Amino acid sequence: MLKAASEHLKSLGLTGPAMVVDESRARANIRAMADKARRSGVIFRPHFKTHQSPVVARWFADEGVDRITVSSVRMAEQFAETGWKDITIAFLLNPLEIPRLTHLAEYLNRRGGKLGVTVDSVAAARAIIDLDAQVWVKVDTGYGRTGVRWDAADQLAKVLTEIPEPAGLLTHTGHSYSAHGRNQLLEIYAETVERMSAANCGLPLSVGDTPCCSAVDEFTGIDEIRPGNFVFYDLMQLQIGSCTADQMAAAVVCPVVGIYPDRNQVVVHGGAVHLSKESLDFEGRRIYGCLGDLDLPPGGQNAGLGPVLREDPVISLSQEHGVIEADATIIGDLGIGDLVVVWPVHSCLACDLMGEMTTIFNK
Amino acid sequence: MLKAASEHLKSLGLTGPAMVVDESRARANIRAMADKARRSGVIFRPHFKTHQSPVVARWFADEGVDRITVSSVRMAEQFAETGWKDITIAFLLNPLEIPRLTHLAEYLNRRGGKLGVTVDSVAAARAIIDLDAQVWVKVDTGYGRTGVRWDAADQLAKVLTEIPEPAGLLTHTGHSYSAHGRNQLLEIYAETVERMSAANCGLPLSVGDTPCCSAVDEFTGIDEIRPGNFVFYDLMQLQIGSCTADQMAAAVVCPVVGIYPDRNQVVVHGGAVHLSKESLDFEGRRIYGCLGDLDLPPGGQNAGLGPVLREDPVISLSQEHGVIEADATIIGDLGIGDLVVVWPVHSCLACDLMGEMTTIFNK
Repeated sequence: MLKAASEHLKSLGLTGPAMVVDESRARANIRAMADKARRSGVIFRPHFKTHQSPVVARWFADEGVDRITVSSVRMAEQFAETGWKDITIAFLLNPLEIPRLTHLAEYLNRRGGKLGVTVDSVAAARAIIDLDAQVWVKVDTGYGRTGVRWDAADQLAKVLTEIPEPAGLLTHTGHSYSAHGRNQLLEIYAETVERMSAANCGLPLSVGDTPCCSAVDEFTGIDEIRPGNFVFYDLMQLQIGSCTADQMAAAVVCPVVGIYPDRNQVVVHGGAVHLSKESLDFEGRRIYGCLGDLDLPPGGQNAGLGPVLREDPVISLSQEHGVIEADATIIGDLGIGDLVVVWPVHSCLACDLMGEMTTIFNK
Repeated sequence: MLKAASEHLKSLGLTGPAMVVDESRARANIRAMADKARRSGVIFRPHFKTHQSPVVARWFADEGVDRITVSSVRMAEQFAETGWKDITIAFLLNPLEIPRLTHLAEYLNRRGGKLGVTVDSVAAARAIIDLDAQVWVKVDTGYGRTGVRWDAADQLAKVLTEIPEPAGLLTHTGHSYSAHGRNQLLEIYAETVERMSAANCGLPLSVGDTPCCSAVDEFTGIDEIRPGNFVFYDLMQLQIGSCTADQMAAAVVCPVVGIYPDRNQVVVHGGAVHLSKESLDFEGRRIYGCLGDLDLPPGGQNAGLGPVLREDPVISLSQEHGVIEADATIIGDLGIGDLVVVWPVHSCLACDLMGEMTTIFNK
């Protein structure tokens, strides 16, 4: 089977490490989340840090999305340049970037859009008193990374006092990435909503993590969602239980450069600079990705990404090398220079590293 | 102290995540390795994957280096474009890249240079029978990643038979990265030389890993060295014992965006997309970097990179965030928007991610 995938990938002109995206799957993921937000009556402001791609951004626009989230000023500038007008930077404000933010806010305001920024301290709120932007206050609902703790009412009031017209309270429930299964995600979501409501002062509430946003059927008690990872999902999301294997939409195509049947391993050109060193524990082993395959219907048309072969994991990565431990049948089937599909642990980091998506499968 | 460093970094015009390199330290590292190679009578062919920078490449040229190693065809093309003529790609050949390799070899040959490629299989050796390049055979001396095993004489002979004029045998002793202390490194080096000599058929021998190349006083029994990481070193090399803290020459400057005295943490803009998720165990904890400081002599001139504060580690990374656990005195000293020096675990991956080195300290 992998041989057929290799031949197909070669016929597309691929030769080396390349990010491939299954457009049909990604569009279906976007549509499902957009529909759910619409049914729930909440604003859908997807996080674009996952793909960072103007092409994928258009797929969101096709589903009616016109408000987005990013995680750096640079990313906000890039999407502003390609026509996006309503952009929230869901990353704590760096006062040293105020000149760039001022320029960006003016640029968006002139086009009828707006810039959103995020703060969690009096110092940051004061620093941007002259910035013509929407100011969100970051709340920590239990993740423990950034934000004013949901139960620190005094501190929250102090920060809010410094902001003439706060846009709302914003949280990222990053601890959902350590969850397992839908029930646990539903519990985390319920707790998040409860804590955001407790912190609330009549302001809009924005939440956004892919695991919880994927698990819930309806968004109640909040006003806006900002998931990003769901556009492609990945092995980590599969492990958490927030997606199925056939929702995974981005993989890295790697050439086989070494074959070692005596230790059931193949080595590919696909290392830490392609997949990132993000890892997860799968059945007691630390893995950095796993082999995949294509879905190749007879006739040669409508190819797409296919199975996830978790029994054939990437067991180590160096800068450019990936070591894959694979079934003897698979190894026997592969030759030097064959192209294999490798599923990344975390699609956001792989996309950031690969920079561009050279091939799009559209069924 | 960190406050003074922050003010100095701001005075250089830095605002966000930026790779800073201490030119004096890097030049001293290059000079020491070049001198040792010269004294030992071996060829010094440094690996340029660590820095990937035409500027740093010139510092090597200043020490008489005119032969280099890279780990991808793309990197070879980039250095060829900036005038380097004698380039070995110490990464197993991907047959799908033969058209690019042919073009590159012709380009270098026309300029009086040469291209080196690496194979470890009959299939790869046969695939490049018409390529006008130096062909090295990769030998596995115990790392277990790629190469023909040093003790598989039959297999080695089979590969060599396919190559009209082999350039030599090449190994990467990557298991030295798991070593601790100079004695262990000297043992690994001795074993490597012994195994390369056993595999030898009168051909030149090339070895290249920073830990062993840093530890030995004289290169005996081999013909060429290819270390790369030593130009900047990093926390991993410090932990291995292959460098001292004052040889570390590259760090990432990050703005402080969140301060949390109740949990002794600061959050910086400096995440997995800047430092990489490379980690190491330091005193029983997994760390992804640590705070540093500048060396700021009175008078404001001759600033450079300074102390390594391993007691103030980066304890977690997400895409753009780094969480640093720090001493209360340090946290009390820092404000939102201050710039801090963060030492990476692995300078090669941090350089690859950062793309450019925006500031150079030259004492």
